[in-house]
Amino acid sequence: ALSIATAAVAQTKPEDAIKFRQAGYAFMAWNMGKIKAQVVDGAVPYNKDQVAAAASVIAAVANSGMGALYPAGSDKGSGFHETKVKGEFFTDGEGVAKVAVSFNKAANDLAAAAATGDQGAIKAAFGEVGKACKACHDSYRAK
Amino acid sequence: ALSIATAAVAQTKPEDAIKFRQAGYAFMAWNMGKIKAQVVDGAVPYNKDQVAAAASVIAAVANSGMGALYPAGSDKGSGFHETKVKGEFFTDGEGVAKVAVSFNKAANDLAAAAATGDQGAIKAAFGEVGKACKACHDSYRAK
Ligand code: HEC
Ligand code: HEC
Repeated sequence: ALSIATAAVAQTKPEDAIKFRQAGYAFMAWNMGKIKAQVVDGAVPYNKDQVAAAASVIAAVANSGMGALYPAGSDKGSGFHETKVKGEFFTDGEGVAKVAVSFNKAANDLAAAAATGDQGAIKAAFGEVGKACKACHDSYRAK
Repeated sequence: ALSIATAAVAQTKPEDAIKFRQAGYAFMAWNMGKIKAQVVDGAVPYNKDQVAAAASVIAAVANSGMGALYPAGSDKGSGFHETKVKGEFFTDGEGVAKVAVSFNKAANDLAAAAATGDQGAIKAAFGEVGKACKACHDSYRAK
């Protein structure tokens, strides 16, 4: 719930905001990949501490108030590269809040599951996080 | 201590590894900036939850095993942009371990301080994290 409520922190320049949000998503993707490799695909042996650490990153990023990284004027422009955000992100506040809240819950549930070491629970929670990422991308990120 | 020990996860392609490490550092910088604004500069009113969330990001990134993001072949190349890592990062294992371990400790201490809400303690711990970032950059990152 933090993620939306914290837009009132110091105003970040649009190009920095775009860079930071691209950074946050990219770093989550790395950590999702590690959990997928260990718990879903089995491509890498399961290591409880590594999966818990990866899930902690995703939860911490989800709880970090990324709403503040969408200041006015950041609908266009370049951070690490040209932004892919859709204009709808800035006009559909209710829809964005909905996907953000469900992502936030899924991310914190994944961290809780990862801390237990129950691989079945982790796999299920991972699936929910993946759906929440996708739900946002389908509506608010250009291809 | 996790950060160095986890190079044995699935091998990441050099250009992805560079992108992910640039992402991790950039996202930490955003969160350091929020703590600085609220607790050091006072440019933004102190909000305990926001500062704790920011410190949790920094600790989670520090604990995430970023050593795995320096695979062989990632001393040159481009992620979000051309890497700034120095060759010494790949040859001075002992020196890298030292800065990484002290960064890891400082980041976890900051998260602990942030959870208490004691602004003096947060400010001191923030200073130690800043020194740890700088120690690594001075030795292993090009200007
Ligand atoms: C609330 C909306 C939302 C959620 C939730 C979300 N994303 Fe995104 N994502 C975006 C938007 C918008 C962009 C485009 C950002 C830009 O370019 O300014 C993006 C960009 C990305 C990128 C490209 C980053 C880059 O520029 O290299 C990746 C990778 C990504 N997201 C992965 C994820 C993953 C993994 C999750 C879940 C763990 C996730 N996202 C959750 C909205 C979201
Ligand atoms: C163990 C070494 C190490 C530590 C600790 C470290 N850094 Fe760095 N940092 C690097 C290296 C190496 C690069 C260059 C990465 C690249 O380009 O491949 C870098 C790059 C960066 C960048 C540029 C990212 C980009 O490409 O846009 C920022 C910003 C940054 N660091 C901030 C921080 C902050 C803030 C901290 C502490 C909270 C920190 N770093 C801790 C080694 C470190």
